[in-house]
This record gives sequence, C-alpha cells and structure tokens, in this order.
Amino acid sequence: MQADKTLKENLLYKINTKTKPLGALGQLETLALQIGLVQETTSPQITNPHIVVFAADHGIAATGLVNPYPQAVTAQMVFNFVNGGAAINVFCRQNNIALQVVDAGVNTEIDAELNIIHAKIAKGTNNYLNEAAMSQQQCLAAIEQGKNIVVAIANQQCNCIGFGEMGIGNTSSASLIMSAILGIDIAECTGRGTGSNDEQLKIKIDTLQTVFDKHQLHQLQGDGIELLCRIGGFEIAMMVGACCKAASLKMVLIVDGFIATAALLVAKTIATKDKSLPAFEDWCLVYAHASGEFGHQKMLDFLQAKPLLNLGMRLGEGTGAALAIPLIQAGVNFLNEMASFETAGVSEKEMD
Amino acid sequence: MQADKTLKENLLYKINTKTKPLGALGQLETLALQIGLVQETTSPQITNPHIVVFAADHGIAATGLVNPYPQAVTAQMVFNFVNGGAAINVFCRQNNIALQVVDAGVNTEIDAELNIIHAKIAKGTNNYLNEAAMSQQQCLAAIEQGKNIVVAIANQQCNCIGFGEMGIGNTSSASLIMSAILGIDIAECTGRGTGSNDEQLKIKIDTLQTVFDKHQLHQLQGDGIELLCRIGGFEIAMMVGACCKAASLKMVLIVDGFIATAALLVAKTIATKDKSLPAFEDWCLVYAHASGEFGHQKMLDFLQAKPLLNLGMRLGEGTGAALAIPLIQAGVNFLNEMASFETAGVSEKEMD
Repeated sequence: MQADKTLKENLLYKINTKTKPLGALGQLETLALQIGLVQETTSPQITNPHIVVFAADHGIAATGLVNPYPQAVTAQMVFNFVNGGAAINVFCRQNNIALQVVDAGVNTEIDAELNIIHAKIAKGTNNYLNEAAMSQQQCLAAIEQGKNIVVAIANQQCNCIGFGEMGIGNTSSASLIMSAILGIDIAECTGRGTGSNDEQLKIKIDTLQTVFDKHQLHQLQGDGIELLCRIGGFEIAMMVGACCKAASLKMVLIVDGFIATAALLVAKTIATKDKSLPAFEDWCLVYAHASGEFGHQKMLDFLQAKPLLNLGMRLGEGTGAALAIPLIQAGVNFLNEMASFETAGVSEKEMD
Repeated sequence: MQADKTLKENLLYKINTKTKPLGALGQLETLALQIGLVQETTSPQITNPHIVVFAADHGIAATGLVNPYPQAVTAQMVFNFVNGGAAINVFCRQNNIALQVVDAGVNTEIDAELNIIHAKIAKGTNNYLNEAAMSQQQCLAAIEQGKNIVVAIANQQCNCIGFGEMGIGNTSSASLIMSAILGIDIAECTGRGTGSNDEQLKIKIDTLQTVFDKHQLHQLQGDGIELLCRIGGFEIAMMVGACCKAASLKMVLIVDGFIATAALLVAKTIATKDKSLPAFEDWCLVYAHASGEFGHQKMLDFLQAKPLLNLGMRLGEGTGAALAIPLIQAGVNFLNEMASFETAGVSEKEMD
C-alpha cells in the first residue's frame, strides 16, 4: 500500500493487478472494494458469519384474511429451527454459518430452557385492523433488543451478519411499509406471501388497503418508528435495530428478501434522522437475492440494489442471505489469495 | 417411496412436503428434481466435484487481430494454475472442489513432470485465416482425450463436473461456433473477450466475418466436428468430448461461460446424430452463470437455459462453475436434510 494513495485507490490497484482481465470478476470485484473500504484495509476478512432469525406473531394473522397458514406455524417453525430441520439450518450447516434464533414475540409460551435468544416483547402484535400493532414503548424496546443482540454477536468476532425472519402474516406488514415508504399503491406491493391463491390475494390486498387508509400511512413516508407502531411486527422492529447496530459496527450487512428489505427501508428512515448512525450510503450492504415475492424487485430498484442471486426463492428465514455468503467469501478470497500479474509472471495487455 | 409412483412423482412429493411453502426454494427445487432424476433416487448426492480446465493456443492469436493479450499468456496462466494463484484455484479451494488442469495444446514445451494432465494435440491450432484450424484426426483425438479424462475422474467417485478453459484467442472460436450453430450474424456473437477496446472489437468482428466466409461456416450448422476442424481449438474439442462422456456417465454437468457453452453447442450437434449418447434433453445440465461476455445470453436463450448466477463475470477458467457448486450442493442438501411437515409437526396450509 502506498501512503500517498487513498485506500480506495490502493484497493482498486490490488483488484486490477490480479491475474485476470480488468473487471472480469464482475460483482465480486464490487464486493471486494466495498468490504475493503468498510474494514479500512486492502486485505479484508470475513470472520464468524452469522444469520439471526427473528420470529414473532401478528395479530392480523388470527383473522385469516392475509395468510393461508395458521398462526401456530410460527412457533412450530421455531421448534423446527431448534431441531435443525428447516431450510435455514441446512444452508447454515453447509456454509459454516452460525445461526441464532430469536423469540421476538411468538404467540406461545416458549420454555426458557430452549436454546434460542429469549427476547419476547409480547405474544404477538395487536390486530392492526382495529388498533395500532404495538405501543411506542414496545417498538423502542424491540429496536433496542435488536441492537443488543448484534452487539453480543459482534463480540464473538463476527463481522458479517444477515437477518432472517419467521412470522405468519409478516409479508402484510412488509407490504404496508413498502407502500408507505416508496409511495406506491398497496396493490403494487402485495404478493402471495406464504402460498395465497388468487382469491386470497385479492382479499389480502383489500384488507391491506383498509389498513393503509385507517392508519393514514401515506403521512408516514419518513417516519419508520411510527410506521412500525401502527402496522409493524416485533421481528421487523428488532431487525430494524439490528440493521442500525450492524451498520454502526461497520459489519457486512447481508440483506435477505422481502421482509428483511422492508426492515432496511425503515432503518433507512432512522439513519436519515439519527446523526449518530453512519450515513445510509456508507452502510456495507450486500443484497443477497431478488426474492420471488412480488414487490421485492421494486424495493431493490428503489434502493438501487443489485442482488447477488436471483433464484426465484421466497422462503424467508434468511435463506437467501445464507446462500449469498459463499459469494461474499469469494469476493474477499480472490483479493487476498490471487496472484498479481507481477508475482505470477503473467504478461499484461499489449495494446490499447 | 411408494412403488406405484414414478420416481418423478416421488421426488416432487418429497420436495413439496418439506417445511416450506410450495415452490419457495425456486431454482433449488428444480436442481433437486433434476439431479434426483439423473441419479434415479430421491436421495441424490454430490460426490467429489471437479473442475477441469483445458488450456490450448490458437493460431489466429499470433496475428494480434482478435486479442489484446499476447499468446504467451496461455502458458503463463497454466503455470499460475499449478502454483495456485489464479481465480479458479481460489474458488476451488474455498468450495472444496478438486481441480485438474489439462494441456490440450499449449504453444510451449511443458515439462512432463509438471503436475497437470499432459494431453497436448499440437502446439496450438493453425491460423484459420489461412487454413483449417486442425485436421479431422486431431479433432477426433482431442474429443477422445476429453472423454478419457472424464472417465478417469468419474472413477474417483466424482459425479459432478464442470469444464473451464484457458486459451488466448478462444472467444473468437466460440463466436464463430455460435454464429454457425445459432444461424445469426457474427457481429451479434462477438464480444470483447479478454479486454478489447472499441477499435479492437471492430477489427475482431471484421476478421471473424472474413473467417466465417472463407470457411463457409453457414453450411455447418449441424456438423460440430467439421466446425471444430475449420475454426475450433483443441481445448474446445476436448471439452466437447468431455461433455459427451459426462452425459453418458449421467454426471451433473456444470456449464460455465461463453466458451464452455460454445463447446456444449457443438456437443449438442453430436448428440443429435450419435444415438449411443443420451438424448440431449436428458443431459443433467446445470448452467452456472450468465457471463458478462457479449453473446452468452443469446446462447443461453437458444438452449432455453436459466443460469444460477448473473454476476457480470467474464473470466473463463471454469470460475462460474466453481461458484455455482455450493448452490447445487444446497439443492441436494435441502432434499436430504430438511424436515417434512409431518416429521417436524408443522401445520400445512388451511385454505385453498
């Protein structure tokens, strides 16, 4: 590294003198630069990567208006995570990723002995068809919990983290957040979630339009906290806090699918106001995948995000983030391990 | 598995009863089905995956008309592979993939002691601006070598293989193959290869048009062998044989980028005629990525291929294939390791 050059120049020089044509590693080169910049080194490392899955229930789900699966599935899936049988378990095992599961607000008494992070705010949110989903106190407590969980994980030398979720009904919160923050019609933000058919989708859209109007969400484009209070979920609020803290700690923050991206949109509104946080454009965000859930691509476009994967997945749990980690690792590894033209004795371009 | 059901029905049942919404793992589900079908089991496995990089030189490259890097780079990169300093080395190490490098026809004496597969047909092809690139005897010998190499690797319990290449000038052969087989203009098939600028690209297109006309390639849409003889490369011919043998052995065949896909196009013409090979539509092809090299997307469209990755990479060496292997592994792992609704005690959909 030459002292008279900036870190960015040194990183670009290192990337461009590897034994490959200029730019030939595409998005992996973008990752190498991005991670080098946030870690302030030309030899960045990914250490002890984690996925954290936040689980919580939604009052709206009990109505059956927005979700074909029963609310009980949220808790059942928490037990499935603990037993290692869910998709996120399989992908974390495969890719050597540590997995933490958080009870952010599941509507079931969960044994305190169960090997998860116990951070229940309440047994599910209120039904936002009738009232605000949560109090401001609950919302701020959830955000604080999310921050604390990330601090504890960062203390285990983790510098790369992705957030996933489980919560029957939570695509509805995400659609409402998207509609409010992007300022586009709820029908453009609402997909099938966990397996709705055409008729169910229509009912879901009509229900969410009613909710949008009742809570005057069009007034809240820049107020993520109030959005969470009116129509959020505890798992989403906790993800918001987790995102803010990961950014503060200069971690590589892997953004999963539809609901995780909705949480990021809320976190962005907070970063715009809270000057103690790094500016949003400086967050080391890696968008894992374009979800198959309708609406996600529009969120990505809004964020000017180019995701690493597009496999038509729409499962949540952080599964997209877990599959993206080997690509992130590859972005760092080529920078650290590839020979340069000089060290390998390979000729550079002759013409130009 | 129920005896009265077909393998496909049993695979779909197993995929669909995993603890996830129907279809929520997108292309990973397609992979699970495809690999289960070729391995004739509902518990498929990926064992000892390999990448084989075929290296060879091209007579045209010495003219400097189609490539900004000097021909010597082919041999220099072979030494870089052996020393572990190339991108493919990094990605294979990361993902536990065995790597084999083949001298298919590098224009350098290579020490017989060097730890590669020595299968040199000749020191580079003839310059196809003047004459046929290789004799039919050379072409058939290269195809045979490719087959033999795959047999030897399959004997090491490898059932998943990807082919990469190194050869200064070889995007030109690939563009000519594409133009002949797809029946589209050479300008639509010609990209910058390893770093050509605008002016170099124009010279490359003009040169390849001259070659196309001289060798009457429009007559050879269905005759891959003759195409290889007139404008091929030894590494491409060897990849063609390797593809055919991998298909015969029912291996998972990972298709890398522009040049590997051109080799597959040639192999397809052979499969159409040679009834001892499995029908092309039964080959277990996994398209690793959409290369950033201009023309590759059109090849993929022609093959009705949906690649796993789209990272703007255009490096060759099998690097796209190496990065796709964790996704292929994930497709098999979820099928083998995830709990079903029944075993996990998770409720299925209520409505519909």
